Amino acid sequence: MNKTLDPGPHCGLAERLFHRLRDDGFDGTGISRESYGPGESRALDIVEAEARALGLDTARDAGANLVVTFPGNDPSLPVAACGSHLDSVPQGGNYDGAAGVVAGLMALARFRSEGFRPTRTIRLLALRGEESAWFGRAYMGSAALFGGLSPDDLAMPHVITGRPLLAHMQDAGVATERVARGEPLLDPATLACWLELHIEQGPVLVARNLPVAVVTGIRGNIRHRAVECVGEAGHSGAVPRWLRRDSVFATAELITRLDRHWRTLLERGRDLVVTSGMVGTDPAEHALARIPGRLRFSVEARSQSPEVLEAFYDLLLSECAGIEEERGVRFRFDRRLDTAPARMDEGLIGRLRAGLRAMGQPDEPVPSGAGHDAAVFAGAGVPSAMIFVRNQHGSHNPREAMEMDDFMVGADLLARTLREIAA
Amino acid sequence: MNKTLDPGPHCGLAERLFHRLRDDGFDGTGISRESYGPGESRALDIVEAEARALGLDTARDAGANLVVTFPGNDPSLPVAACGSHLDSVPQGGNYDGAAGVVAGLMALARFRSEGFRPTRTIRLLALRGEESAWFGRAYMGSAALFGGLSPDDLAMPHVITGRPLLAHMQDAGVATERVARGEPLLDPATLACWLELHIEQGPVLVARNLPVAVVTGIRGNIRHRAVECVGEAGHSGAVPRWLRRDSVFATAELITRLDRHWRTLLERGRDLVVTSGMVGTDPAEHALARIPGRLRFSVEARSQSPEVLEAFYDLLLSECAGIEEERGVRFRFDRRLDTAPARMDEGLIGRLRAGLRAMGQPDEPVPSGAGHDAAVFAGAGVPSAMIFVRNQHGSHNPREAMEMDDFMVGADLLARTLREIAA
Repeated sequence: MNKTLDPGPHCGLAERLFHRLRDDGFDGTGISRESYGPGESRALDIVEAEARALGLDTARDAGANLVVTFPGNDPSLPVAACGSHLDSVPQGGNYDGAAGVVAGLMALARFRSEGFRPTRTIRLLALRGEESAWFGRAYMGSAALFGGLSPDDLAMPHVITGRPLLAHMQDAGVATERVARGEPLLDPATLACWLELHIEQGPVLVARNLPVAVVTGIRGNIRHRAVECVGEAGHSGAVPRWLRRDSVFATAELITRLDRHWRTLLERGRDLVVTSGMVGTDPAEHALARIPGRLRFSVEARSQSPEVLEAFYDLLLSECAGIEEERGVRFRFDRRLDTAPARMDEGLIGRLRAGLRAMGQPDEPVPSGAGHDAAVFAGAGVPSAMIFVRNQHGSHNPREAMEMDDFMVGADLLARTLREIAA
Repeated sequence: MNKTLDPGPHCGLAERLFHRLRDDGFDGTGISRESYGPGESRALDIVEAEARALGLDTARDAGANLVVTFPGNDPSLPVAACGSHLDSVPQGGNYDGAAGVVAGLMALARFRSEGFRPTRTIRLLALRGEESAWFGRAYMGSAALFGGLSPDDLAMPHVITGRPLLAHMQDAGVATERVARGEPLLDPATLACWLELHIEQGPVLVARNLPVAVVTGIRGNIRHRAVECVGEAGHSGAVPRWLRRDSVFATAELITRLDRHWRTLLERGRDLVVTSGMVGTDPAEHALARIPGRLRFSVEARSQSPEVLEAFYDLLLSECAGIEEERGVRFRFDRRLDTAPARMDEGLIGRLRAGLRAMGQPDEPVPSGAGHDAAVFAGAGVPSAMIFVRNQHGSHNPREAMEMDDFMVGADLLARTLREIAA
């Protein structure tokens, strides 16, 4: 245990809850809790039973999410809300999502045991349907709350059964006729904030030796699933350099130039990550002794700043044009896909960082590269913020890990901040 | 017709022969003459019938190749030999190989009609089995002549029928028991030279506006079929640049650095071409939002100079080591494959270039990037040289093309040079 912290009597609650969730969700390899499936519903039941045993009020909202309420003295005030999701990817880990729900319940349990009487009501939401692994779309649970699911979304087939999302939502008890109409199930004006604790899913906190960190924003992205570099195939021995239109050398130069721009932008303090996750010549026509006439590759830039994304995209197009001219190739782009960055609330960020300092912890903030429900809340106009907890081995795999000491730092920060906001 | 040339009465012979070969070899799309197959045998028959009609002596050697002889006054002297191959790839063109045989026959026809009485005997060889498309190995016909086929080579299965090369050679009339023993069928000491006219198969003569060129050497190569760059997979949004081990960015930088070395070596007058013909992330694990942990690519360097090949290979290893250190990746190499360059004979090169100048043609020499039977003759110790004829649209495809005017320049150069050597 970290010496600067008193975990209090609720550390046992967290360990018991994580154990129960793991026992129920273990699929033989990792944890599986399908979005709007029976495993997700059982996870909500496990948390609800624990909340009731603690004497807390529980309910299900029109989105079939679990709501645990700690009532305040003035019910007319917007509510201090926290939470995260309870579904998981197939063969995932136990903490991605569940950590935020367990931390919220710990806070409410502590408030109750201490006899805290807040002015604002405090509410924990255990959300459904955050992971894109089951229907191809992420944040379904929070999007449904704010009227953000389209009929096309509701028709998305389950990746295994092929049944549409709508049917799975009906099974789980969602008011699907309201969701289908695009009707909000929750008025954002009734929320004073959305605080979400989540494992980092990345290696930054481990590398920087930070148990927790406050998230400055959730990166948006610009993507192309398939850019094709088209040159000219030819005999690898018979065509000299000056007559080549080599798609692999052209693309290698493009990526190297983009890497240089990326480095420069980082040095100037900009937030950016760049990835080309899928690259390949066509096995039906490539050969060891053939100059590759075509290469396909994906490209993705992520940043918290829309301006940085646009500036980097301009550099991409400009470098493509230069290389086309120099090397006699063409870059053909498929449809550009955009996801806007989500800004976290400055006031909440300041409050969380001050909380960390008061706890004797470093308060260095980090961006979130992965998306989260908090982006949907922020998009709906709810002041939102996130606490990242250090985790090992990434996420979405059975080796995902988290130290309980780190989790307790994050849970403590969440409780402190909710107490301040609701007081 | 080129005004500086008198094509003589034998231009009709060339056009007739090319037409007959095309009519017989057309497969509906391009030209197919299988190595040691019936189409190749019929092509030998067509040339032989034409040679006999011209009153020339013909025979088949122990390798079942066609031999057309123009006797000299001193049969004890080494023979002036010329020729090329008559097989083709599937759906190939009509000139790859055949051009050299037709040019040789034109020379002998002219010598005969002019009543030329050489000191040395002049001999045209119409070889079999040059293309690797049918059994996976090239230069089988010339290799067999010099005892260079191994039992493993003879066991190679035909790509379509699966029957071994040995059986196809037997069908064609090759003395396979001698070939299987590794016994030379032709004593290199009996040859004064090997002159091979061939279409270029590349774009250099077109780009430089040269109808023909003398070949300085045949490029050898160093190859790796599969180098694997191993980094670490991760979430494309959650891992910042400084914690990435991205196999695609690492390999892009490697190729870009090799490209820079290549350019520098060319500027310093070295002969080199570099190709990475096959590149790809693994479709079973890659994704748009996943940092690619693995990338496989092939690498091939070709040069006329063994020293340049080794120097470039050293640069490859050195750049890999540097990038491994900087980017936290590993480059894993499969078996290195080597083919030695073949040097063309300096005396013959000088004679051919002088011939071009005498004909009022530019005498700029070029390297051969593709391999040829001439490399096997050179390797056996026969002074060898090649004449390239400009051709359009590359080779090994039905669009392969050659202007008769260009061919006539090359055929004239071949005849002049044979005359000089045999006189």
